[in-house]
Amino acid sequence: MGYFRDNVERVAGYTPGFQPRATDVVKLNTNENPYPPSPAVMKALAGIRPEQLRRYPDPVGTAFRQAAARIHGVTPENIMCCNGGDDLLSIAIRAFCDAGRPLAYPVPTYTLYPVLAALEDCPTIEVPFDEQFNLPPALVKSGAALTIVCNPNAPSGTCVPIEELASLADELTGVLLIDEAYVDFADRDCIELVREFDNVILLRSLSKGYSLAGLRFGYAIADAALIAGLMKVKDSYNVDAVAIALATAAIEDQPYFKANVEKVRADRAVLTERLIALGFGVLDSATNFVLATVGAKHLSPLPAERIQEKLAKRNIYVRYFDVPGLDDKLRISVGTKQQNDRLLAALKEIVG
Amino acid sequence: MGYFRDNVERVAGYTPGFQPRATDVVKLNTNENPYPPSPAVMKALAGIRPEQLRRYPDPVGTAFRQAAARIHGVTPENIMCCNGGDDLLSIAIRAFCDAGRPLAYPVPTYTLYPVLAALEDCPTIEVPFDEQFNLPPALVKSGAALTIVCNPNAPSGTCVPIEELASLADELTGVLLIDEAYVDFADRDCIELVREFDNVILLRSLSKGYSLAGLRFGYAIADAALIAGLMKVKDSYNVDAVAIALATAAIEDQPYFKANVEKVRADRAVLTERLIALGFGVLDSATNFVLATVGAKHLSPLPAERIQEKLAKRNIYVRYFDVPGLDDKLRISVGTKQQNDRLLAALKEIVG
Repeated sequence: MGYFRDNVERVAGYTPGFQPRATDVVKLNTNENPYPPSPAVMKALAGIRPEQLRRYPDPVGTAFRQAAARIHGVTPENIMCCNGGDDLLSIAIRAFCDAGRPLAYPVPTYTLYPVLAALEDCPTIEVPFDEQFNLPPALVKSGAALTIVCNPNAPSGTCVPIEELASLADELTGVLLIDEAYVDFADRDCIELVREFDNVILLRSLSKGYSLAGLRFGYAIADAALIAGLMKVKDSYNVDAVAIALATAAIEDQPYFKANVEKVRADRAVLTERLIALGFGVLDSATNFVLATVGAKHLSPLPAERIQEKLAKRNIYVRYFDVPGLDDKLRISVGTKQQNDRLLAALKEIVG
Repeated sequence: MGYFRDNVERVAGYTPGFQPRATDVVKLNTNENPYPPSPAVMKALAGIRPEQLRRYPDPVGTAFRQAAARIHGVTPENIMCCNGGDDLLSIAIRAFCDAGRPLAYPVPTYTLYPVLAALEDCPTIEVPFDEQFNLPPALVKSGAALTIVCNPNAPSGTCVPIEELASLADELTGVLLIDEAYVDFADRDCIELVREFDNVILLRSLSKGYSLAGLRFGYAIADAALIAGLMKVKDSYNVDAVAIALATAAIEDQPYFKANVEKVRADRAVLTERLIALGFGVLDSATNFVLATVGAKHLSPLPAERIQEKLAKRNIYVRYFDVPGLDDKLRISVGTKQQNDRLLAALKEIVG
């Protein structure tokens, strides 16, 4: 029809993971937390008054910024609230990138990055990880205006050492955005890089560690000057009054959060071990999912896609990516013990 | 610091209306509805389960699309949910505009349009309204990729006839977005233009007519092909599970909505009449606010800005715009009868 910009016409758009309508399913395909959000969140929900809905929300989410700053040992001026982590990715690409200012990132990684770049008509520099998902040395020489490193990386589940990210931040002429959507399940985060470098942005999400995927709440942690610039690009009221109240309640309940994360980490270790015992190749994961490579010894010759289909027929959903380097793998979210058991029993039947 | 794109460095950003923290104020500066949202909304809020927060929301808000389609006599494919009307403005400008594809709109109008254009590094063609806020004939010749007409217009409160918008849609080579954020308070809307033209997008908001400014929920109504293209540009999950549920409950309670709107319209007529009696110039408003021009006969020589300051000292907040053409005017939201009475009594003291 010709009304859209050419780059928008060309882009295929991002396809979110399949959301089955049935409830009696084992849903391990979109990395949701298997446990419910904190009771404090439900209490905050019950406390929402009509007046909070009637009036415009706080444009910057002061209550959340203060709570997050306290927890991370930074100031509220280092925090920006976002309508999910994706909102921050979109804001950052619009703030730093255009046709003359490329975006760089190692691949394979979160497949939303190239979609957002295409929407901004911005060239991408994709630098391949090696088989062990080490940070590619060529990344530093890309000359990009914005470099995104997903750490822990999706869908590999792997982490690169903070020292390597520090060197990268130091040597880059542009901005380094570390997508820490999954960092709650890792051994350490990169918060100290924000104190050291004025060009580092951390992306955080409440979707995974805080079991709030339905709420759409993420945030940036960065140097105050960077945050002030990003604030100009965000929608005036990008997070709503309910989301601010619930996210603040969630992040303030650190004991619940930590206990929840520990359960997922313990179950991840068991799941990894048992997948390896079934013959899958599994790298150590620092996230709430594992990436299982099909085709290691003792396995049936079934390709990953067929295994995914056979699982789906049993109402067990995992994620398959039809892209080079990932098409022999399945990404499996860590579920409850019972869900993981159902998955493993089914896999045993399918590939055993 | 040089990390940002030049156009982002230059842009001043949008300043939302002042939100006083005190509660004992008469707040008539940001066009909120003075009445609470429907009881059905609070019931929907009470019905939110932890599972809805834990899982990702429906990426397209199917429940809301179906409800809105039924009410407007279109199909769900004609509806796109947005994180407030501002989200749609941002999506549309990113979808249609860039350095070579300008944005046009009549002025004075909603001051967010030029900010969003600047963020996209897109030229703007501003065509002045006449004193009666008639649609400027020059708009059709602008050659813009996107033309926005705020109708009813903010901050004038005036409407242009649908026949003129139909001609405009027919003659434009680009897209016509009619910002109907305030249309709930007008005599008619432009829904029939969506059925007639493949290049018309209506913007709707639940902030005003539905008393849900705190929830951030708006939507687009347009030809299905236009909606499909806009969907590629929006964030994958741009509206959250709570917002979808509450917005659906709100729009399904049409009797409450209509009664609420009627109260505002009746109070608007009284407010307009009494402001004119005090010596202000007031055009007929089709919105939930009035634009009052200072300096008509019988008035004290106080400029608009001073009147606003004096009102603020009495905890009565109205909106003043320090821009040419508006700097002799005050934009006053229609409040409850009691709030309007307090405002009028204070104005009588200040200018009487």
